[in-house]
Amino acid sequence: MAAAEEAAERESGGGEVLSVYVFDRRQADSDGEDKVVKCPEGNYGAFRSAVCQVFGISSKETFIVTTTNRIRITNENFGGMVKDGMTFYLLQSVDQSLPSATKERIDFLPHYDTLVKSGMYEYYASEGQNPLPFALAELIDNSLSATSENTAVRRIQLKLLFDDSQGKPAVAVIDNGRGMSSKQLNNWAVYRLSKFTRQSDMESDHSGYVRPSAVPRSLNSDISYFGVGGKQAVFFVGQSTRMISKPADSKDVHELVLSKEDFEKKEKNKEAIYKGYIRNRKPSDSSHIVNDDERFLHNLIMEEKDKEGFTAVVITGVQPEHVQYLKNNFNRWTRQLSHIYHYYIHGPKGNEINLPMKEARTFNNIDIEISMYEKGKTPKIVNLREIKDDMQTLYINTAADSFEFKAKVEGDGVVEGVIRYHPFLYDKETYPDDPCFPSKLKDDNDDEECYVIEKGARGKRPIFECFWNGRLIPYTTVENFEWCALPKRGLAPSECYNRISGVLFTNDRFQVSTNKLTFMDLELKLKDRNTIFTRIVNGQEQRMKIDRDFSLWLKECHEKHDKQIKFIHFKEIITRTEL
Amino acid sequence: MAAAEEAAERESGGGEVLSVYVFDRRQADSDGEDKVVKCPEGNYGAFRSAVCQVFGISSKETFIVTTTNRIRITNENFGGMVKDGMTFYLLQSVDQSLPSATKERIDFLPHYDTLVKSGMYEYYASEGQNPLPFALAELIDNSLSATSENTAVRRIQLKLLFDDSQGKPAVAVIDNGRGMSSKQLNNWAVYRLSKFTRQSDMESDHSGYVRPSAVPRSLNSDISYFGVGGKQAVFFVGQSTRMISKPADSKDVHELVLSKEDFEKKEKNKEAIYKGYIRNRKPSDSSHIVNDDERFLHNLIMEEKDKEGFTAVVITGVQPEHVQYLKNNFNRWTRQLSHIYHYYIHGPKGNEINLPMKEARTFNNIDIEISMYEKGKTPKIVNLREIKDDMQTLYINTAADSFEFKAKVEGDGVVEGVIRYHPFLYDKETYPDDPCFPSKLKDDNDDEECYVIEKGARGKRPIFECFWNGRLIPYTTVENFEWCALPKRGLAPSECYNRISGVLFTNDRFQVSTNKLTFMDLELKLKDRNTIFTRIVNGQEQRMKIDRDFSLWLKECHEKHDKQIKFIHFKEIITRTEL
Ligand SMILES: Nc1ncnc2c1ncn2[C@@H]1O[C@H](COP(=O)(O)OP(=O)(O)OP(=O)(O)O)[C@@H](O)[C@H]1O
Ligand SMILES: Nc1ncnc2c1ncn2[C@@H]1O[C@H](COP(=O)(O)OP(=O)(O)OP(=O)(O)O)[C@@H](O)[C@H]1O
Ligand SMILES: [Mg+2]
Ligand SMILES: [Mg+2]
Repeated sequence: MAAAEEAAERESGGGEVLSVYVFDRRQADSDGEDKVVKCPEGNYGAFRSAVCQVFGISSKETFIVTTTNRIRITNENFGGMVKDGMTFYLLQSVDQSLPSATKERIDFLPHYDTLVKSGMYEYYASEGQNPLPFALAELIDNSLSATSENTAVRRIQLKLLFDDSQGKPAVAVIDNGRGMSSKQLNNWAVYRLSKFTRQSDMESDHSGYVRPSAVPRSLNSDISYFGVGGKQAVFFVGQSTRMISKPADSKDVHELVLSKEDFEKKEKNKEAIYKGYIRNRKPSDSSHIVNDDERFLHNLIMEEKDKEGFTAVVITGVQPEHVQYLKNNFNRWTRQLSHIYHYYIHGPKGNEINLPMKEARTFNNIDIEISMYEKGKTPKIVNLREIKDDMQTLYINTAADSFEFKAKVEGDGVVEGVIRYHPFLYDKETYPDDPCFPSKLKDDNDDEECYVIEKGARGKRPIFECFWNGRLIPYTTVENFEWCALPKRGLAPSECYNRISGVLFTNDRFQVSTNKLTFMDLELKLKDRNTIFTRIVNGQEQRMKIDRDFSLWLKECHEKHDKQIKFIHFKEIITRTEL
Repeated sequence: MAAAEEAAERESGGGEVLSVYVFDRRQADSDGEDKVVKCPEGNYGAFRSAVCQVFGISSKETFIVTTTNRIRITNENFGGMVKDGMTFYLLQSVDQSLPSATKERIDFLPHYDTLVKSGMYEYYASEGQNPLPFALAELIDNSLSATSENTAVRRIQLKLLFDDSQGKPAVAVIDNGRGMSSKQLNNWAVYRLSKFTRQSDMESDHSGYVRPSAVPRSLNSDISYFGVGGKQAVFFVGQSTRMISKPADSKDVHELVLSKEDFEKKEKNKEAIYKGYIRNRKPSDSSHIVNDDERFLHNLIMEEKDKEGFTAVVITGVQPEHVQYLKNNFNRWTRQLSHIYHYYIHGPKGNEINLPMKEARTFNNIDIEISMYEKGKTPKIVNLREIKDDMQTLYINTAADSFEFKAKVEGDGVVEGVIRYHPFLYDKETYPDDPCFPSKLKDDNDDEECYVIEKGARGKRPIFECFWNGRLIPYTTVENFEWCALPKRGLAPSECYNRISGVLFTNDRFQVSTNKLTFMDLELKLKDRNTIFTRIVNGQEQRMKIDRDFSLWLKECHEKHDKQIKFIHFKEIITRTEL
């Protein structure tokens, strides 16, 4: 074989040498392994003689060579057909059967769409909601995780760089968290490499995952799970992402660009798809940014000089419809984000507006700031903490009373829950309207008033919104539980059952789907017959059966808080001429 | 450098030779590219001298070598730290700044969990439904696509091999479709390689995708889209899959095994993760099946001798909870499958039970047969066509009349729709109950009767179920449209608006999420103000505005079909002693 190889190399005359695998299956009893045949590219004659040599075939014997798909290799098709690493058969005839099996070597590297299209069919619309805020949330999730050990303020900035004079539209998420070493940045790009599978290594990567200890409302900042969120999010929003990161103790900034265009180029040039470069550089050095479309990067990189650890995710090639949506619905989607992170921003009790400012502000030190820059306009800047019309804020501040409980699920899952009572006051329900969850899609010009029947208080909405590790999972709601659903004979009037809203809080003992839009089976588990619900009062579990406890509470809410004006004892009609 | 290389090879004494990349960044003006340094594994001294030689450093100069994470390489850590292909710095001191940037080579091959966990967090429960049938549906989808060009019967078998005496539990989906060549089987394993990105090649792969032409209800059998479904499904159901396939015109059967265990082994042995083997063999040759857990395969493979083209997907390592569910809920999940494929099985008009058998049976020739084998029990076998209590069958056969329409959406999306009227007859609503979509989860022992109020006809259920390329997308429903929602003043009584069910049919102009559980934005598009609805009568578009048309139709349905008994003119009480 060494001789054959040499011959091949000689004859290739500098061209490529092919190595292919050939199984001899000519005889009824042939069952040998494959043999390597080397020959110069595009030279059929040399291939045939190499085959003869390797298998010791004399010039008198007849044989044919076929692909594993039984296409006969000929002088004509050799060049187009025979590629390095392929497997071939040595046969008597094209359609003889295989006396014994063959093992064909294959490669099945995931297509680069694994990354590039990962988010494209993940963030779907539900109930008329554009899912874009949920993609952005993945990046905020990562920043929350990354800043969990900050001692001072945890600063997360979402910047919409839509000023044409500064380049093409871009979306950036920047945090002052722990940053990534080049090894960690490399790991970021590895699809499905999660905190659970990441190898600890000497280079300061997470060394073995430790589950965070239990905290109220599961606000543990541990929102990373699958190793896909960041990639899905950036490729949902745009076509290219530049990750810029520096751990606090590092001298160097690390930068990695992943882009659809790059992948396409590599495929075209037959280069390795999953190889690339991380740029390591000193902070504030933007000399490599030469593309005019990304001019804004110079400013962004300039700011590095004042920073310790940080990570900036800069998405370019932003889908035009996303730009439009972000521009035209600023209030709507910022409100949604403040809903998603309500308890991270405001603490376990949520945004109780009437509390003294100081107390409300101390929790967790998380500043999530959204800013949008457009040419010729003053930037719009809002801190999510300032938003006062997100659903949780509305629920909390219209509630007259609340009922806390715990659900213990088989295994060792624990769910915390709150039910709030929104009383009827004088002439109307105080139950807040949900602009993001209308029972039908509202057309702004729509003056039709269907569904008046169902508009009373909660209407068709389910009772419970659900939070996972402290953040909202937007598309999973729980309608009710048996003990808080309208019974046949309750102690309180039936309307009261429509005046409650609720929240459930779980940690990652309950699983969510990869896109973090839904829980996997929260409702199934909660409605399992072995799940035990207990009321909690001042942190203490109550002994009474929860359905009784709840009925009593609801009755009390009704009696204490509902204020209905009832006109009784008609006397006379007075005409008030003075009006 | 050639000299250095030779030295490296010499010194390695047969051990591995490392190639690493080194950037010289000692001087304020150093900005060179990296240079390759070769040295034997584990030999720090040789590494230092190779560095000196490559960079022309004299023995008097001081320098240090660090990782890109600025860990100094020393005699002690060299073995553990320095690996082939890594990038290093040549510096004056560990914490000097980088005078100019460096480019560090990285690899970011997707983790094998991309395949192995692809389905794990995809098929989530909704409304108390176990999502397992939806995973199985992915495999039936593939079989529907594969049999689309069959001239005779299209036979799809889902076999649950739960007979312990035959091996460990397995789930097999077998079709008599076009099969796969070894190249196509190889492509099957490439994650995210879809019909759109697949290269046409000479080896009879799909050569360039052609969109199927429009057919009623979009029953085009073209249900493959993302290049992930099969992989997600098999790894949701179990831990290992054996794909066995043969195109009709092929002599050989091709077999590929992907398993979690294999991937883990390859990782441990540092072998290439995405390389493997396809076994090519003659039909009915099961000599390679030596594992007792898979004994059932001998029978299954034996059956190949009677087959032309076929594909068998055999899943092993089936999650025990899936086995339990499949055993204990046979009627429930088979009914769900017959719901999903209702129109494929019964044709565009659906399962009109009272039609003469022959007419109903001719559509599409699709036989989907489910069989379950347990030890010591007679096998349960059902053809989905025989199931008579799937929701679509119930809707169709309780309907007294139907209203067809079309929605034209911006772009060129067209949605076909049907609304059906389920009249009130004598003493009760005929609107069928949906066991899979209860307004609350029902506990079988639950004799409480909450929600009586909402049980009238449709209750809280949305009107429309939605089909994509003819198959149900189970978690997307559309509540209603303006023109068929309860108006302020309608022509028919308000109860009538609760007596309608509906179906929407789209083709792939409307996108679905990767798990095929939801549409991406069907509702948003349909509720767009530019969407035009038109009634269709006998295939003809009607001119009248649809809301008026619908009101009139509903009024007519009420007058013609609702039969309410009204007791009037009380006369006397008769005691019937004879009873
Ligand atoms: N802003 C950041 N700062 C520091 N590290 C980050 C940041 N964003 C991402 N990372 C690192 O990159 C990894 C991959 O992020 P990605 O969001 O893709 O997946 P994940 O967060 O691990 O899991 P999930 O799929 O649940 O989001 C993270 O686990 C984290 O180690
Ligand atoms: N039963 C089958 N018979 C023939 N070919 C099949 C069969 N199942 C799968 N294939 C081939 O394998 C490919 C990959 O299947 P897979 O279900 O993973 O993705 P897909 O069907 O292309 O897209 P989707 O993600 O929408 O399911 C298919 O496109 C098809 O070419
Ligand atoms: Mg993440
Ligand atoms: Mg498929």
